[in-house]
Amino acid sequence: MSLAIVGTVAFDAIETPFGKTDKIIGGAGTYIALSASYFEKNTNLISVVGEDFPKDYLEILKKHNIDIRGIQIKKGEKTFFWSGKYHDNMNKRDTLVTELNSLASFDPVIPDAYQGSEYLMLGNLTPSIQRVVIERMKKRPKFVMMDTMNFWMDKTPEDLKETVSMVDLLCINDEEAQQFSGEHSLIAAAEKILSEGPKFLIIKKGKHGALLFDKNMNIFSAPALPVKTVFDPTGAGDTFAGGFIGWLAKTDDLSFDNMKNALIIGSVMASFNIEKFGTERIQKLEKTEISERIERFIRLTQFDIETNLL
Amino acid sequence: MSLAIVGTVAFDAIETPFGKTDKIIGGAGTYIALSASYFEKNTNLISVVGEDFPKDYLEILKKHNIDIRGIQIKKGEKTFFWSGKYHDNMNKRDTLVTELNSLASFDPVIPDAYQGSEYLMLGNLTPSIQRVVIERMKKRPKFVMMDTMNFWMDKTPEDLKETVSMVDLLCINDEEAQQFSGEHSLIAAAEKILSEGPKFLIIKKGKHGALLFDKNMNIFSAPALPVKTVFDPTGAGDTFAGGFIGWLAKTDDLSFDNMKNALIIGSVMASFNIEKFGTERIQKLEKTEISERIERFIRLTQFDIETNLL
Repeated sequence: MSLAIVGTVAFDAIETPFGKTDKIIGGAGTYIALSASYFEKNTNLISVVGEDFPKDYLEILKKHNIDIRGIQIKKGEKTFFWSGKYHDNMNKRDTLVTELNSLASFDPVIPDAYQGSEYLMLGNLTPSIQRVVIERMKKRPKFVMMDTMNFWMDKTPEDLKETVSMVDLLCINDEEAQQFSGEHSLIAAAEKILSEGPKFLIIKKGKHGALLFDKNMNIFSAPALPVKTVFDPTGAGDTFAGGFIGWLAKTDDLSFDNMKNALIIGSVMASFNIEKFGTERIQKLEKTEISERIERFIRLTQFDIETNLL
Repeated sequence: MSLAIVGTVAFDAIETPFGKTDKIIGGAGTYIALSASYFEKNTNLISVVGEDFPKDYLEILKKHNIDIRGIQIKKGEKTFFWSGKYHDNMNKRDTLVTELNSLASFDPVIPDAYQGSEYLMLGNLTPSIQRVVIERMKKRPKFVMMDTMNFWMDKTPEDLKETVSMVDLLCINDEEAQQFSGEHSLIAAAEKILSEGPKFLIIKKGKHGALLFDKNMNIFSAPALPVKTVFDPTGAGDTFAGGFIGWLAKTDDLSFDNMKNALIIGSVMASFNIEKFGTERIQKLEKTEISERIERFIRLTQFDIETNLL
């Protein structure tokens, strides 16, 4: 199949208890596309950068066979820049700098070559821009997945609701699910959100894994891989989403059983991402590393009870 | 096989946002034994109550074929009484009353009929009393499982360490694992605790499920059943432990694969326990209810990825 992704391509500067980086390649679109590219070979990225964005960084994406014709390079403008610092065992993050730069006037252009993509992933962005991308696809993709964050729940709640009503799958974290639904229980939150449009919902719980729901309230639970050290959690959620949608696009199977597999793939990819700064780890993954880690998830979660022993 | 359990048999008075109870039957030993009794038919309880403890309450245990000859009834004394109140969506619990009463001078007596029990479960108690029970078993049981809590980490840390060093499996929650090991990461905490004696460790994470570790750092993760409403979490950890040890004793298979099954059984039993006040729900469970809920855990966690698709 073919996968189109819209999301930021950016400079990140990250500080964790283990060290700090200069301006490295970041942005939701970058993480999603890199992660998805291990599965879906026809991955198309829609984004915007300034003219300060290094060719080398774009090369990273191209090396993964990601089509970057949808990345606009804005003359005379700078690239979106985010800087953050983690502390308290990675449980807390302070944003130090947010410079929107070229992102402020982002007007997504979808190259002809991207038209007809059956799968569309909307990375976290202004909900009205996410909506524009759906509308600019001449044929509505078979499956649209959307990520968002609490910022838009506070800032543009009506816009957000409208975009959510247009997608097949919404992917948010537990606190966002609670805020968006007004429900404390994640089950009640899921029921409410699934009544507002999406057929599927993923609730990410960070180190506690993720839950997948459908409208019939089938539920699947994937743990996060237990790890001794989280080196840098930046982009883990996007890497997770990229693995999920990449697997779906590759297999083109929207059954709940295959979505379970996609959730595991997302968890596998996120477990790599946190091992090094930024995209470093997910830039250079071998197939054997991915399959070995899938095996770890199998050992971590699979059991075989003989219920006739009861 | 045969299972001996030591733990409190008590009066509980519970208040949740859904209502409150008078003095009902409670105590770690009660929850553990009731839960285990669905699996291990030869379950023996060691405890102490006062003469105010109703015969009807002891009948509840007897109806489950639990041998209660090890429960001492102290003339002229009252039964251990605990009262607690839950608030903030069950995330917080205040202890309103703790009256040790007959528990204060508890000196466990092990009836001859219990000698030879291959499995021993030490419910949360003073660590020195837990140790005495191991020592009073004429033959060291094949498998000893122990629960404890942060209270003993603060109050009698040396005693606790000594008892921990004597057991096969320690079962504690995530915060307790962090406190006991001085490590934030649960993996690092597990490595440290497993270097101090036990061959196996369970870390309970409440609504996020539980992790099982062995000394080779094999890890298994079981989720908690996602539920809309937690009616009363009292005894959930003990019910979990009872299901775990009951399954192990019944199957008499100490392989890591069978311990995975035991962890699922524990999670299944805990998921029932929280549905009603106190032991109400786990007093009357049908086999079909248990097997149906195992099926729900299977649907919730099992997947089937064809890694050759990678």
